[in-house]
Amino acid sequence: MKARGLTQQNLLAAAKTYVPTGGRDEFTAFASGGQSGQIIVYGIPSMRIMKYIGVFTPEPWQGYGFDEESKKVLRQGNIDGKEINWGDTHHPALSETNGDYDGQFLFINDKANPRLAVIDLRDFETKQIVVNPLYKSEHGGAFVTPNTDYVIEASQYPAPYSKKFVPLERFNEEYRGGVTYWKFDRKSGKIDPKQSFTVELPPYSQDLSDAGKLVSDGWSFTNSFCTERYVGGIEKGRPPYEAGCSAKDTDYLHMINWKKAAELVKQGKAKKINGMDVIMMDTAVKEGILFLIPEPKSPHGVDVTPDGKLITVAGKLDSHVSVYSFDKIMAQIKAGKFESKDPYGIPVLSMKDSLHTQVALGLGPLHTQYDSKPCIAYTSLYVDSQVAKWNYCEGKVLDKLNIHYNIGHLMTMEGDTEHPKGHYLVALNKLAIDRFIPVGPLHPQNHQLIDISEDKMQLLYDMPLPLGEPHYVVAIKSTTLKPGIRYKVGTDSRTDEPSKGATRAGEERVVRKGKSVEVFGTEIRSHITPETIEAEVGDEVTIHLTNLERAEDETHGFTVDTYNVHASVEPGKTVTVKFKADREGVFPFYCTEFCSALHLEMEGYLLVKPKGYKEVKTVEAKAVYTKADYDKQVKTNVDTQAVIDSVVGYITSVNYKDFPPVVALVDDATDQLNRAKEAKAKMEDAAKKSDWQNATLWAGQWWQYQVKAADIGLRAKTYLEEHGAKKAGK
Amino acid sequence: MKARGLTQQNLLAAAKTYVPTGGRDEFTAFASGGQSGQIIVYGIPSMRIMKYIGVFTPEPWQGYGFDEESKKVLRQGNIDGKEINWGDTHHPALSETNGDYDGQFLFINDKANPRLAVIDLRDFETKQIVVNPLYKSEHGGAFVTPNTDYVIEASQYPAPYSKKFVPLERFNEEYRGGVTYWKFDRKSGKIDPKQSFTVELPPYSQDLSDAGKLVSDGWSFTNSFCTERYVGGIEKGRPPYEAGCSAKDTDYLHMINWKKAAELVKQGKAKKINGMDVIMMDTAVKEGILFLIPEPKSPHGVDVTPDGKLITVAGKLDSHVSVYSFDKIMAQIKAGKFESKDPYGIPVLSMKDSLHTQVALGLGPLHTQYDSKPCIAYTSLYVDSQVAKWNYCEGKVLDKLNIHYNIGHLMTMEGDTEHPKGHYLVALNKLAIDRFIPVGPLHPQNHQLIDISEDKMQLLYDMPLPLGEPHYVVAIKSTTLKPGIRYKVGTDSRTDEPSKGATRAGEERVVRKGKSVEVFGTEIRSHITPETIEAEVGDEVTIHLTNLERAEDETHGFTVDTYNVHASVEPGKTVTVKFKADREGVFPFYCTEFCSALHLEMEGYLLVKPKGYKEVKTVEAKAVYTKADYDKQVKTNVDTQAVIDSVVGYITSVNYKDFPPVVALVDDATDQLNRAKEAKAKMEDAAKKSDWQNATLWAGQWWQYQVKAADIGLRAKTYLEEHGAKKAGK
Repeated sequence: MKARGLTQQNLLAAAKTYVPTGGRDEFTAFASGGQSGQIIVYGIPSMRIMKYIGVFTPEPWQGYGFDEESKKVLRQGNIDGKEINWGDTHHPALSETNGDYDGQFLFINDKANPRLAVIDLRDFETKQIVVNPLYKSEHGGAFVTPNTDYVIEASQYPAPYSKKFVPLERFNEEYRGGVTYWKFDRKSGKIDPKQSFTVELPPYSQDLSDAGKLVSDGWSFTNSFCTERYVGGIEKGRPPYEAGCSAKDTDYLHMINWKKAAELVKQGKAKKINGMDVIMMDTAVKEGILFLIPEPKSPHGVDVTPDGKLITVAGKLDSHVSVYSFDKIMAQIKAGKFESKDPYGIPVLSMKDSLHTQVALGLGPLHTQYDSKPCIAYTSLYVDSQVAKWNYCEGKVLDKLNIHYNIGHLMTMEGDTEHPKGHYLVALNKLAIDRFIPVGPLHPQNHQLIDISEDKMQLLYDMPLPLGEPHYVVAIKSTTLKPGIRYKVGTDSRTDEPSKGATRAGEERVVRKGKSVEVFGTEIRSHITPETIEAEVGDEVTIHLTNLERAEDETHGFTVDTYNVHASVEPGKTVTVKFKADREGVFPFYCTEFCSALHLEMEGYLLVKPKGYKEVKTVEAKAVYTKADYDKQVKTNVDTQAVIDSVVGYITSVNYKDFPPVVALVDDATDQLNRAKEAKAKMEDAAKKSDWQNATLWAGQWWQYQVKAADIGLRAKTYLEEHGAKKAGK
Repeated sequence: MKARGLTQQNLLAAAKTYVPTGGRDEFTAFASGGQSGQIIVYGIPSMRIMKYIGVFTPEPWQGYGFDEESKKVLRQGNIDGKEINWGDTHHPALSETNGDYDGQFLFINDKANPRLAVIDLRDFETKQIVVNPLYKSEHGGAFVTPNTDYVIEASQYPAPYSKKFVPLERFNEEYRGGVTYWKFDRKSGKIDPKQSFTVELPPYSQDLSDAGKLVSDGWSFTNSFCTERYVGGIEKGRPPYEAGCSAKDTDYLHMINWKKAAELVKQGKAKKINGMDVIMMDTAVKEGILFLIPEPKSPHGVDVTPDGKLITVAGKLDSHVSVYSFDKIMAQIKAGKFESKDPYGIPVLSMKDSLHTQVALGLGPLHTQYDSKPCIAYTSLYVDSQVAKWNYCEGKVLDKLNIHYNIGHLMTMEGDTEHPKGHYLVALNKLAIDRFIPVGPLHPQNHQLIDISEDKMQLLYDMPLPLGEPHYVVAIKSTTLKPGIRYKVGTDSRTDEPSKGATRAGEERVVRKGKSVEVFGTEIRSHITPETIEAEVGDEVTIHLTNLERAEDETHGFTVDTYNVHASVEPGKTVTVKFKADREGVFPFYCTEFCSALHLEMEGYLLVKPKGYKEVKTVEAKAVYTKADYDKQVKTNVDTQAVIDSVVGYITSVNYKDFPPVVALVDDATDQLNRAKEAKAKMEDAAKKSDWQNATLWAGQWWQYQVKAADIGLRAKTYLEEHGAKKAGK
């Protein structure tokens, strides 16, 4: 490969990351989509992006925010009645069972508009958005407790809990931070706001959190910056926030006993603010559920070790990583031994007495993740643009690797669970100055894949991120995920309930009531039923569409031209679009997802008549086709059937039942051939009446179904040939 | 690599596609983003996606549709006053000079809402959207003439040109198709609708087009399906469109002499309809600029050979590809020899007399592209799920390759220009059933990269497309693209003019006029000026932000929490966000693009006071810092300076000027150190007055600039070490 100027090490990296056609990536990563407001799903080690999931931003490909079902989810995120059509997603979290990823749910926060979203990993769709009623900003979400009882969300820039204006001069007295514990109900797959609560915190800028596990289960840890409580004002000649917020040598790690906090709420010790239970600081102090420990300058990550015994904090303006001992912390709390109190009366523990060790790693340490090997951790060094591998038991540095450039978070496989999987590490770099082909002033981000399976780390791959700046990513073993490929026919995928618009084949209809036109329609290769929809100017048009396909990946789309509606209708799903027919005219509609050879012909017309339009008596269209046309088409069909029979002959001659994808294809082809029979019956009916026009057209329809069946059959044949199918019975 | 189960062929493919860190992809591909409404930019051969460009759909990461400048572009796409917030993009086209890609502009169409967009490849931003005033639907855009004089856009589903309701029974008489020639003005980089025109066509479903080149320059070719003019109505018992639109054995290839058509318009022979010049069919026939040729059943692609002599058409319900001879066509036209006329009086040429050859390729041929080697073409076979390599001069099949599954378009490098570049082919597959880790019922698409440099085609790579279904893609040699990395300070990137909101450092200000609050602000690592913005409920707030950075990739973002505004402000750009301060309260704002170690501290507050709020006299905040704090910070700074000096010492000791990226970094670091000097001066000023509070904070600010300079210096040092810098002068 000298032609391409590759080194031996490049070739090794290529071999370690290449996933051949049909192969599967070992891990599936879920990255926040940053300012895109979405979630990015990619495979490791190939670093190929599999999907952008619409979460906080409308996304037409998925119909997200365009169909009525998903609009209901998106609009749960309105704030004080205002529509928010984007989000600044930061930290995704996978649901856990006993401290390990279970592959069921994903949570993601919105920093710009304090919200959390729930994504169901059965179908990779967003099912719920909750708005934090207290905060104006939150960066430190989402983090889950070991059994996903709660999803943790911390505020960032302090603001009054009230929705009132309070001058900045009252910052210390009336601005507040906080940590919210959102109760997650695994059965319904939803957050229950009524069972959720917040612990009031001082107006420090709370940042990331982590939940304790095993020995430290029941506690959570949240760090902070700007405990100086500095208020900027560069426009008035004051130093900016960046100076005033980085003046002190330490900030505070917050420790909260969330299990006890939940009990306090049950005991009625919380105060309702904006509809949420809040444990006020004085209560939290009095009940002994809230403590502070100094932590080095402007920290970012706080990360509990897999055994739950140690807590790693990196202060980005300090060159050390600090490892706190949960035991040492507990011993001080038990002994009531506190160094001081903060201005709000919260007990402050001794940093020195809480530390297990401190390790000098380099400039700008940010975030730590763990290896499958005991005592091994990896920390990102922002200013040094390096990943440091180090031993947190013994407090020594083991290896360093240069990355390009300015790494933020890093992530190891399942690296924040009780059982990290090792093998790979991803560096989430903030700059991509000279890494890729140029695409203008706005650059992609750069995630670098690093092999950590050996003593020395090895850089494997540079992955551009084409849309949004992911702040954090989590990765799960791909085999733990068990998403579906179709819905039960007639499902509203956002509620997982049967849709009121669900329609079976043959039961399509249009219901008119006053100014309302409600269409119960279906989609199947390759037509939409009905093909003509009539309305009058001013009508409210509602179109329900059920995808009657059962075949994998046989998604249909739908739009009505110039009406700003779009739907993605996956197999079995029922989707509803709604709009006002506000202009008279002729508006084509069509399937927007390429589904079959006759996809372009999957069309119809919405006809919007002016008010009070009088029907003009129309002349029956002249017949175009004759018996000769009919005979010709029938002959074609008979010939086509011979081809199909030969393919079927091949398939049934081998052990096709040993190949589940082929069994699914055979099912699908059988469906198509059954439909062919129906068309043939209609053809025969017309031919009997010598209606050669319709007989010819139904013969054509019969042929269309044959073509689809042949297409599927050929796919099955190719699959069998490529996967070494053997003669049946051998 | 047996551990990963790779074959020798896999390893070869890995080596052929792997691009090591810092390497560049040889080709840059621009794919339509399908229903996402965007453009997808990816590299070949690595198949890594570099960017999604916002075109028809708002996209917050880029601020597209969120800032005022881009909203103006997006809103050019309103139809009859209605906001359209998505598009169904289909066929991208790169601008050409003398029939070859010049890397300057990109055009893309919207099928669902008949529109065209212009993207400037200097910054990869959408600059213009035009709405077709005649069509309701268009699939066959964009295609350019050899010098990009015109961008060709054909209608798809016929509809009346008038915006009136016309019953389907009047389909033949009043529904129409058409081809629009949008005049492109390269100097302004915009389409000029006033100089554009349309040729009226029968109500066939016009599909794709291609412009003639060299001998056939001046002509364009547009094919069609459903020349049956069938109107469906499955809900009334009629056969569906798919049957009626595929009944005939041939459809029509339309040939239009666009050069002569442009002259006819100048001669006043066009009719103004909805503000556009339209050459009516009877004029087109009379003037001899419009002809039809039969083409096999339901074609998709029409593709002129690199030498302009032949035109390839694939009818997807025919197993042949048909190659027409431009010479033979011209001979017939010259001789006035026509086979018949269509129902609208358009002369129909003999198919037989026009054909150069027909080749039996397989089931479902769709689209053809050309190789750098003479006479070699590649055609996608939808039903067979294959790519066929064939010789169009001699009319013989050379090779076939299975793909997965159901290929739509295919694309070779610059394969529709006069000088195709060969080497790679991309298969745009419509299904990705069993190719990737599962991500729910909605699957990614699958682009497969194929090596065509040797006799036998070789499959190299499967690329999932994570967002939208690309219909077509074009690829250009990466080195032909010359995008910028920054704007001239104060540029409105959507107009490429100086912004009225442009603001220099030190000239930031807030201008209040009645209910309007206009902020002229700046962003630079790591603060926003101003840091406090005050308004009253009901005020219209306008915030202009200029990014003062010159460094590559130093983009800042901006949002005001819960106000649904977002901006991406690349180096030099000025961006404006606007909103009504409709609720009282405290609203943090911050930089949304991770830019520096103190990025999280790049924050401020919008304070919205209730109407008639009376200022409360505030107490001056107590000083927190003492002379001891000041001295300590100064000592830190002096120590830090020593580190910086050592890095600078290293850089200047080697031949850093030979490395342009390092020269840019040194410029940036020098900027930061100059700012450090300014902060230091402010510090000394405060210290002189024994104002230890502000002296300490400005000392901190000095240090912040040092940290940024150190960060940049370390990046430069690493780069030099990794790129073999040598002692200066050696």
